Amino acid sequence: MTNKFEEKTIATTQIFNGKIINLQLDEVTLPNGETSKREIIRHPGGVGIIAVTDENKILFVEQYRKPLDKSLVEIPAGKLEPDEKPEVTAKRELEEETGYTTDKLELVTSFYTSPGFADELLYIYYTDKLVPIKEKMALDEDEFVELVELTLEEAEALMIENKIHDAKTVYAITYLQHLLKK
Amino acid sequence: MTNKFEEKTIATTQIFNGKIINLQLDEVTLPNGETSKREIIRHPGGVGIIAVTDENKILFVEQYRKPLDKSLVEIPAGKLEPDEKPEVTAKRELEEETGYTTDKLELVTSFYTSPGFADELLYIYYTDKLVPIKEKMALDEDEFVELVELTLEEAEALMIENKIHDAKTVYAITYLQHLLKK
Repeated sequence: MTNKFEEKTIATTQIFNGKIINLQLDEVTLPNGETSKREIIRHPGGVGIIAVTDENKILFVEQYRKPLDKSLVEIPAGKLEPDEKPEVTAKRELEEETGYTTDKLELVTSFYTSPGFADELLYIYYTDKLVPIKEKMALDEDEFVELVELTLEEAEALMIENKIHDAKTVYAITYLQHLLKK
Repeated sequence: MTNKFEEKTIATTQIFNGKIINLQLDEVTLPNGETSKREIIRHPGGVGIIAVTDENKILFVEQYRKPLDKSLVEIPAGKLEPDEKPEVTAKRELEEETGYTTDKLELVTSFYTSPGFADELLYIYYTDKLVPIKEKMALDEDEFVELVELTLEEAEALMIENKIHDAKTVYAITYLQHLLKK
């Protein structure tokens, strides 16, 4: 399959350049020759880590999400630094957010979170080879998270309560259900 | 669990109001008393439909995604209209994009696509009770999609090629793998 229904860019207007996202407005030619506008968020992309301890607990972090004005329980995750390989990001975020490290990260999948308006690509890793690190590493200065270790059953209950409620973490639960053939 | 690490809004600046997304910049008080800025995308939310035919084919649509400058194969999906119930959106988008309808939509899950910067919430439905409709309905005027019916094995192959590569569709494949206990 090719790039069916391709839309050629006529003009790009930069609207906003932020710490995390940029917003641009593209004027495009549609497949039928008409023109339209596309609102596009540029994001550096990120990682999420499905991490299972020796005691069969899954590592999560609780954190406040300002766009929702509430806190969620999510798998450890973070943004790519410029030119950083996703596996390096994954190891760093695991260490910073959970106090565990690993030498074995397996890439499970990757996906665009919302391809209609954003180019954010998330890489999802899996590890069940976790080693506690002695000194917990520093988080970003505006980052506040709390480690939560849960069984799969406890995580399923939080999903029903909508406390686990984001794409990468709901994906992680379903992946683990499938992995364990529950 | 409560709203741990809550961030109080000091001021909100509206940056952009678009057709699909709005962008605002919130100045917030962090849990440690410092202030920071949060870049927030407001989105109406949407639906995705996991639809399986009598012949055990899964319905997908191929469409061009300008933020990625390529086309993806995704489950049928669409945005909520103002005050529209997600189940109504799901039925409408199924009809518009695939030419099938249904009287039985089961809510599988819902998730925020990218809670770090956006409030977009997606509702995922499942149906295997599909009825072809006689006249295909009109798409939005700037929407061009092509129906693709695939077996689960064919869809898994497209996922490996990164032609299926967005959160809701990767979720759908894993959900179906789990449902069928593959």
